[in-house]
Amino acid sequence: MTESYPELNHVSYEPLVKESRVVNLGSFITPTENFYIRNHYLEVPDFSETAWNLEVKGRVNSPLSLSMNDIRALPKKELDITLECAGNSRSYMMPQAEGIQFNHGAVSTGRFMGVSLNTILNLAGLKSTAKEIIFSGGDLGTEEEDGAVFSNTLPYQRSLTLDQVGDENILLAYEMNGYPLTQDHGFPLRLMVPGWYGMASVKWLVSIEAIEHPFNGFFQKNRYVLIPEGAEGTTLGEPITKLAVKALISTPRHGEVIHKGPFTFSGFAWSGWGHITKVEVSVDGGATWGDARLINNQSDTAWSKWEFTWQASKIGHFIVKARAYDSKGNVQPNNVRWNFRGYANNAIQAIAVRVASGRQ
Amino acid sequence: MTESYPELNHVSYEPLVKESRVVNLGSFITPTENFYIRNHYLEVPDFSETAWNLEVKGRVNSPLSLSMNDIRALPKKELDITLECAGNSRSYMMPQAEGIQFNHGAVSTGRFMGVSLNTILNLAGLKSTAKEIIFSGGDLGTEEEDGAVFSNTLPYQRSLTLDQVGDENILLAYEMNGYPLTQDHGFPLRLMVPGWYGMASVKWLVSIEAIEHPFNGFFQKNRYVLIPEGAEGTTLGEPITKLAVKALISTPRHGEVIHKGPFTFSGFAWSGWGHITKVEVSVDGGATWGDARLINNQSDTAWSKWEFTWQASKIGHFIVKARAYDSKGNVQPNNVRWNFRGYANNAIQAIAVRVASGRQ
Repeated sequence: MTESYPELNHVSYEPLVKESRVVNLGSFITPTENFYIRNHYLEVPDFSETAWNLEVKGRVNSPLSLSMNDIRALPKKELDITLECAGNSRSYMMPQAEGIQFNHGAVSTGRFMGVSLNTILNLAGLKSTAKEIIFSGGDLGTEEEDGAVFSNTLPYQRSLTLDQVGDENILLAYEMNGYPLTQDHGFPLRLMVPGWYGMASVKWLVSIEAIEHPFNGFFQKNRYVLIPEGAEGTTLGEPITKLAVKALISTPRHGEVIHKGPFTFSGFAWSGWGHITKVEVSVDGGATWGDARLINNQSDTAWSKWEFTWQASKIGHFIVKARAYDSKGNVQPNNVRWNFRGYANNAIQAIAVRVASGRQ
Repeated sequence: MTESYPELNHVSYEPLVKESRVVNLGSFITPTENFYIRNHYLEVPDFSETAWNLEVKGRVNSPLSLSMNDIRALPKKELDITLECAGNSRSYMMPQAEGIQFNHGAVSTGRFMGVSLNTILNLAGLKSTAKEIIFSGGDLGTEEEDGAVFSNTLPYQRSLTLDQVGDENILLAYEMNGYPLTQDHGFPLRLMVPGWYGMASVKWLVSIEAIEHPFNGFFQKNRYVLIPEGAEGTTLGEPITKLAVKALISTPRHGEVIHKGPFTFSGFAWSGWGHITKVEVSVDGGATWGDARLINNQSDTAWSKWEFTWQASKIGHFIVKARAYDSKGNVQPNNVRWNFRGYANNAIQAIAVRVASGRQ
C-alpha cells in the first residue's frame, strides 16, 4: 500500500518518514492525516488481521497466542497520548547531528484505544526470573554500523524493565482517533508508551517476550542513546527514555506577517516527567517573558495547549520564543548539550514574525 | 551560455547562485571552478568585448567612453582579494532569516588583475560638487518589495562615497586567476572593492556616474542593510560595508572520521577592518582554546591561512571551533545579533569530527 500523505512534510522516502507541518498542529488531537510518521525500514508490514497473532512468550507461566478478536474482547482503555520522535528538532542542533533532519514537526497527539499492557502480562503471568520484556515489531530490515552490516534481517525491537512496565497507562493500541490503526501507524497493534520518546512505542507488534537478562538489541543499545561530545566509542551512550519538557509554537508560523493590534500566539507544551505547570512567551528574543494561559494542562500522557495574546503596537521584525516548565521543576534550556545523533533537542524554539501596519 | 559548475554546490537556479564546497577551499587562491557565484538576475549579460564600453559620466570634467582595449592600455594592478557574500552562513542564523540559504561556502579568494579605480577617476576628473559614485552593472531584472514590483528593469547598482573610493586597492578587474573574467564572474569588467562584502563588487560594469546626492537605489537602501529584531519598517537598516572578522574551517569537513594521533586542522580567516592577528582553535566545543599557526597573514585584501595540529588521543566525538582576531581588536562572537535578512553572520563556526582507532 502506497500513501502520499499530502498533509505531511517529506523527510525521507526510504524508510518512509514524514513530519507534521507545525502550522497544522493547532488542535489538541492531531488528525490522522496530519500525524507524523517515522518508519525504520523500507518494507512496511502489510498484515491481514486474520493472518496475524500476538505471541506472548519467554519467562511466562502461560504462553499466549492472541488474535485481534481475542484482544478486542479484553477490557478497553482509551488515552490521549503525545508522541514525539527522539530526533524531533534535530535540524536545529549545531553542529549538525547525524540522522534524519527533522524540523519541529515530529510530534503529534492521538486518541488511542486498546488494552492495558498489564492486562496481557497478567493473563500470561510473569515468572519470578523475568527481568525485562522485549517488544518486537513485524518490520525487518538491514542496519549498518561503521559501514559493516549489523544484521540483514533485524526486527525493530525495544525492551522495558519490569519497573517500567508498571505504568498502567502503557497500551496495546488498535485504534487511533476512532479508527483502526493505519498501516503506517502500526496496524493492527502498536505498543504505546506514554511520556516516552516515540522509539518505545513499537509498531506492528508481533511478540512480547519476558527475558532474564538485559536486552542489548540494536535499537536499545546502538540507537536512541546520547553520545555526547568527547564520549568514548559509539555504544556507551545514556539511553533516552522520557520526553524532555518542551513547548511548540504552532501559530503563527515562522516568517508570518501579522498586523498591529492584538494577536494570539498558541501552541502546545509537554513533558514525560510531569504535567506542564507554566509556559512563558517572549516577543523580544528572550529578554523579557510573560505567562501564557494554560488550557487542559493536567494530562499525564498528552500535551497542554497554551495561548498568549500580544498587543503588537509597532511595525517591525520580532523574535518570539516559548518556554515550558513541568511539575518536576524541569524547564526548557536555551541550548541543549550536543549529542552525536541529535536526540532529545528541547532547546527553546524561536520564530520571527513581522508586524505590518493595521488592516485597512 | 549555460554552465553547470560541477565543483560548486547548488543554492539557486533563478538567479544562478552556487557556493563553494568548504572542503574545496584549501588553497590560498580559489581555483575559478571552485569560486562561488552569486548573480542577481536570471538573465546574465553576454557581452561581446567589441560591443561593450564603460561610460564614465555625471559630475566629471571629461566624460569618457572606454573600450576594453583602452582599459587594458592603462597601468595594471594585481591583487589577491577575498570575496564573501553578505549572506554567507545565513542558514546558521536562528530563527531562519529571509534569503538564499547559504552554508559557509559563499567565500572565495581570487587573484584579480585590472586598473585602479582612481586611475579612471583621475582621467575623467571629478567635479567639486561630486559626492558619490554610482557603479552600474549590465544586468537588469525585476525586484519586488512586499509583493509590489519595485522596478521591472532594475539594473544592479551600488554607490560609494568619495571617502570610500579613496582606497587605492579598488580595482576595475578584467582578469581573475590569470584569465579573462568568465561570464558569471562579470565579463568583461568587474568593480572589485577589497575588504567589503561582495555586493559592492559590481559585475558586468557598464557605467560609473558621479552624483551630487546620496544614492537611494534598491540594492543600496532596500537590500544589504541590517534590519534587526524590533526595527521599525523595512528600509531603515544600517548598511553593511566591510567584512566582519571570521574564520573558516576547511579541513576536515563536518562529520569526518579521523584517526588517533596527530591531525592538522586548517582553514582561512579574514577581516575587512584590518589584518588577521590570531586564530584560536578549540577541540572541546569552546571550553578551551589553543593558538593556531598563521600563514601569510599580512594581506590587506585577502584571507590568512591557519593551521592547528591536534594530538587526538582518545576515540569519540569532538566539536571543533575556530575563532579569529584582527588588528583592530575585533574578535568573532559566539552569536551574532539576529537580522531579518541574515547578513554578515560571523558567529564562530563549529564542526563535529569523530576520532576512530588508529589505522591498522
